[in-house]
Amino acid sequence: MSSGFRSSTRQWILTNKPSSGLPTLSGPDQTFTLRSTSLPSSLQDNQVLLKLLYLSNDPAQRGWINPHIKPDRMYLPPVQVNTPMHARGLAEVLDSKAANFRKGDVVVATMGWCEFAVVDAEMCQPAPELPGGLSKTQYLGALGFTGLTAYYGVKEVGETKEGDVVVVSGAAGATGNMAVQIAKNIIGAKRVVGIAGSDEKCRWVEELGADKCVNYKKESFRKDLVDAMGGETSYADVYFDNVGGEILDLMLTRMAKHGRVVACGAISEYNDNRGTMLKNYFEIISMRIQIRGMIVLDYMSKTQEVMEIFKQAIREGKLKVSEESEHIVEAGFEEVPKVWMKLFDGTNTGKLVTKTM
Amino acid sequence: MSSGFRSSTRQWILTNKPSSGLPTLSGPDQTFTLRSTSLPSSLQDNQVLLKLLYLSNDPAQRGWINPHIKPDRMYLPPVQVNTPMHARGLAEVLDSKAANFRKGDVVVATMGWCEFAVVDAEMCQPAPELPGGLSKTQYLGALGFTGLTAYYGVKEVGETKEGDVVVVSGAAGATGNMAVQIAKNIIGAKRVVGIAGSDEKCRWVEELGADKCVNYKKESFRKDLVDAMGGETSYADVYFDNVGGEILDLMLTRMAKHGRVVACGAISEYNDNRGTMLKNYFEIISMRIQIRGMIVLDYMSKTQEVMEIFKQAIREGKLKVSEESEHIVEAGFEEVPKVWMKLFDGTNTGKLVTKTM
Repeated sequence: MSSGFRSSTRQWILTNKPSSGLPTLSGPDQTFTLRSTSLPSSLQDNQVLLKLLYLSNDPAQRGWINPHIKPDRMYLPPVQVNTPMHARGLAEVLDSKAANFRKGDVVVATMGWCEFAVVDAEMCQPAPELPGGLSKTQYLGALGFTGLTAYYGVKEVGETKEGDVVVVSGAAGATGNMAVQIAKNIIGAKRVVGIAGSDEKCRWVEELGADKCVNYKKESFRKDLVDAMGGETSYADVYFDNVGGEILDLMLTRMAKHGRVVACGAISEYNDNRGTMLKNYFEIISMRIQIRGMIVLDYMSKTQEVMEIFKQAIREGKLKVSEESEHIVEAGFEEVPKVWMKLFDGTNTGKLVTKTM
Repeated sequence: MSSGFRSSTRQWILTNKPSSGLPTLSGPDQTFTLRSTSLPSSLQDNQVLLKLLYLSNDPAQRGWINPHIKPDRMYLPPVQVNTPMHARGLAEVLDSKAANFRKGDVVVATMGWCEFAVVDAEMCQPAPELPGGLSKTQYLGALGFTGLTAYYGVKEVGETKEGDVVVVSGAAGATGNMAVQIAKNIIGAKRVVGIAGSDEKCRWVEELGADKCVNYKKESFRKDLVDAMGGETSYADVYFDNVGGEILDLMLTRMAKHGRVVACGAISEYNDNRGTMLKNYFEIISMRIQIRGMIVLDYMSKTQEVMEIFKQAIREGKLKVSEESEHIVEAGFEEVPKVWMKLFDGTNTGKLVTKTM
């Protein structure tokens, strides 16, 4: 597929915003619909024609199609019904009228769930070769927004310092595994405890450097967590929260005085409109806890600096970034929504990426 | 009652921690019980004998008798069953073996619900005459912990700046009315909106300087609040929260990007163990809201400085502190718990003080 000309593309269009529960992949209310649409017959100045190679799958995308959130209460414009689903991806430049991109370049682009797309060059970032034989797909995860989110969450929002006790939920997820490594191996937290959804995930998180990772699906979860943190009188200075809900509520009882909760995600609630029940809300007051919402877009000016920190940490063996931190699913374009839904069934470890065939 | 000798005192003892709902004033499970107990026959060095004059009534006291909060999760040791209920008060020194207090002095003391008590001098602070004919009872409210709480909440925790939009719940309460005045008249917030529980309370809050105060008991509350804030596209930079619960949940949808919620109190929940349901939790993430718990005890080193700011503001007419900001109830000592319970029935405006007869 190296031809510079394409007359049409397939796209996954948002047809119905799921009002509650999981998005549905079939039936009259199906969330997404596969359609073909024509492409412009020629490029305008500063445009490129892209062919999708890899798609980034992110829990945040669930928020972009939530009908209950008013547009002005989102950090990005929500996806409009009858337009392609938004997504970041890795793409090949098939044709270019932009000075900074040439045919054959690989770029990171927000091209949505589209096999091909004509986009403005400013929507694309270069994706140069990575050292150590790392795949460029890392630009979608550890060395992209996901890794940056973990870094800023741990460092700026959580104000994690050497010697702190840090707990990370969703610790085997794309952001969580990076947060664990950054807190423990880059910042030097005294104790880092992960929370994940299977013993296998927990083992992986411990291999990455967590002092302990506990499985929240076990009956003994609360006790396991307390033990992992160092016992009933040990509390967390920082809780990096990717899940919200009941685990957040429990963690309110396990935060140190003046502890910081990094509110990065709430995946336990993305497909559920019942809301977050905090039985332990009063601990926020009595222990002077802070809950701090974060979105990585607020910190983009520091990207280059953090990328240098990451590359150095990879060289020193402090940051393990490899194919093990990616979960790449090869799939036909017609399987794109189905692969994305794996984010919500608990089977995924690391960054979920779709390699479109 | 100027005698320096007392052989006994009446005390209100905590007999049962109320496990849910309001404390009960009668029956086998009654929360408090009136008892007489003997006093030491003589003072030791550095002790004073106090006679209670006025009691401070504070919502925070409800937390001190909550059986569900573990002692190490409170900012002060909880009240033990079979000991006197904790409270601050204004008292007269009947006898002293402390160098810094003399018979006849009036002091602010944490002497609990006791008619008389022998306490260490370090538990007492002097209560010198106030300018402008202000009653010393103001040391229990506007010019005491209550006013300090409002000041630090608005200034340090909420980081309120000139030009901000500020919303204060419990605005006719002891802390709330001070928070309104400090935000509007001392810091110079662009717009300060109060929330209170009756039209009469709202009028008073507006007299103190709020641009608008809205009655949360009205059907039209949400619309009234939005209008008072300047319309659907106006959001709060700071929400000073004294109530928690549903109003907090609503306010999450009305916070500006990077807005700060000062979690000062949660009176809507103090007699209810169901917990705080935040249907709008996700707005914390998407709008990067911070919820910051606070306890005034963290800021005591700055007390003198703030008192000077308050006195200056009173002289300049920016801070209205008068008998109107106090709700003084004269009552026999046997009525002490009953008066305290007025904190929770919505009838109180300003600082609720019991003058014991």
